[in-house]
Amino acid sequence: MSLPRIAVTMGDPAGVGPEVCLHLLASADIASVCTPIVFGDAAVLRACAARSGLPFNTPVLTPDDWAKHHAKVSQPGVLDLRIISLDAFAPGAINAATGHAGYACVNRAIDAPLAGQVAAVSTAPLNKEAMSLAGIQFPGHTEIFAARTNAPRSCMMQYSEEITCSFVTVHVGYRDVPQLLTRERILDVIELTAAGLERIRRRKPTLAVCGLNPHAGEHGLFGDREEERIIIPAIEDARARGITIEGPLPPDTAFLPWKRRSTDAFICMYHDQGHIPVKALAFDSAVNTTLGLPIIRTSVDHGTALDIAWQGKARPDSLYSAVRLAVRLAGTA
Amino acid sequence: MSLPRIAVTMGDPAGVGPEVCLHLLASADIASVCTPIVFGDAAVLRACAARSGLPFNTPVLTPDDWAKHHAKVSQPGVLDLRIISLDAFAPGAINAATGHAGYACVNRAIDAPLAGQVAAVSTAPLNKEAMSLAGIQFPGHTEIFAARTNAPRSCMMQYSEEITCSFVTVHVGYRDVPQLLTRERILDVIELTAAGLERIRRRKPTLAVCGLNPHAGEHGLFGDREEERIIIPAIEDARARGITIEGPLPPDTAFLPWKRRSTDAFICMYHDQGHIPVKALAFDSAVNTTLGLPIIRTSVDHGTALDIAWQGKARPDSLYSAVRLAVRLAGTA
Repeated sequence: MSLPRIAVTMGDPAGVGPEVCLHLLASADIASVCTPIVFGDAAVLRACAARSGLPFNTPVLTPDDWAKHHAKVSQPGVLDLRIISLDAFAPGAINAATGHAGYACVNRAIDAPLAGQVAAVSTAPLNKEAMSLAGIQFPGHTEIFAARTNAPRSCMMQYSEEITCSFVTVHVGYRDVPQLLTRERILDVIELTAAGLERIRRRKPTLAVCGLNPHAGEHGLFGDREEERIIIPAIEDARARGITIEGPLPPDTAFLPWKRRSTDAFICMYHDQGHIPVKALAFDSAVNTTLGLPIIRTSVDHGTALDIAWQGKARPDSLYSAVRLAVRLAGTA
Repeated sequence: MSLPRIAVTMGDPAGVGPEVCLHLLASADIASVCTPIVFGDAAVLRACAARSGLPFNTPVLTPDDWAKHHAKVSQPGVLDLRIISLDAFAPGAINAATGHAGYACVNRAIDAPLAGQVAAVSTAPLNKEAMSLAGIQFPGHTEIFAARTNAPRSCMMQYSEEITCSFVTVHVGYRDVPQLLTRERILDVIELTAAGLERIRRRKPTLAVCGLNPHAGEHGLFGDREEERIIIPAIEDARARGITIEGPLPPDTAFLPWKRRSTDAFICMYHDQGHIPVKALAFDSAVNTTLGLPIIRTSVDHGTALDIAWQGKARPDSLYSAVRLAVRLAGTA
């Protein structure tokens, strides 16, 4: 029986993406559960390997090879997209050229599952500032995947064994969050999370929803009754659809150890409400995934880490976890 | 040499305050570092002891005893304020009468250090809803202490060995936070935190400031440039005053394990930015303190926990930690 092929993007060339991809390509554990294909530039990976002291012995495929023979690829490889010249950037520096290159790798990788060439996509980190310099206005992968696949509804989820959070809003300013909370959006995120967790756990999950305000508003003492007006009706809608869910919980006590153990996933109203506990508790092992897409997409849960890029210091654990979750979501592990 | 006397409030009578005070009064460890005096009702404590299966063998002082002989009190005791009738409430239920009683204990306890009768005050939890029913509009202890002592500037700090956070805003709705952030207020909180930590650590502390927006705004990509307009100028002001401080940090990576180890305290822009990681990482040991007051005040870092009140289940660890921190801040340990 053949293993699933997973497209893995190289990420922003100036960041830690290339070196965590090099680790991945050399991992026997990963090769035992899937066939990873890195969508990137062989020249970048080769230069990064030399600079970081990492091996690079992987077969390199041209786009033409891939188009013709993808169904027969059964060992880890690099799809050489030749997007960026090594002269065009320096590792660790924010640059429009690398912003463009990272984005181009993602776009090519999205084509692959849509064409049935791979089972899923796992992504290494992009740099939002570099993309912005390149005139690319997407704030993150989640939004690129949603736009490219015309997903009518989708959401980001951070998954780990310790704590899992999904998000009603993500890459927006603090002050823009309240106006983006609607009963419909919260219900969408609850439903996407319930379906995603059922796929991962192979059973019905138990969910919890965080309030927006301190102490979940303490029955209207703080805030504009967002809990009563918006969040509680969405929870009631979800229960009416058979989802096991509680809330709105006071955000600061939602993530206590015993609550984490009894809750498969927390629905968070804004980026830092969930990212703070996930990173504090599960930094090395958390994985990011986009729920609601017609394709499976997982990602590392760290950034480009420009300060340590191309130095051989970056740990590949999060990329390994991302690829393993992709395999599980694909239903083949 | 005599030990410092610490006034300890009983908290809302319907919550877990009475039983954690009973544990405290019976603790030989606590009695070896200070003399706790519980400001509350002896009848409530006695009834709670009977219901919870806890001992209550502590001397009871009348207000008259205390006024005349406080300087000679050298063993744990109860100052019997006789504020509430046992008929007026049920354990575990929100009630205007207990809201009033909890508040009255705090008010009496604040008098004690102002009159030089005790070295510090440690508080058991109030219930904000019960206080609100009683027509008391303070959202929490921090605000009561600030108002009663006419403190020109003060802030809440959550202290633990694992992670310490102080707060620019606390008990306000999510949407009200941005308009409350000013360069002056942030600088005040930084200065109060630096002074408080120097007192606790007996050396100059290293501080870090969190941004408001996801990724600290990523150089203006998210939010209204609150980092550039308000937070960074405040950090520069603090540096000009000799404080060792970094930031604004992306809030979600501020609390990673290695960052926590190198940072004595984090300055947080809003309640849940700091309360989420403190409670996730140090729920049982965190202590709340109010910095900037003319008196020393520490508090448990949990609520009234009405669901387990008077059942003998509540753990007194947080109150013990609060009393120990009060002793340390008083400079006598």
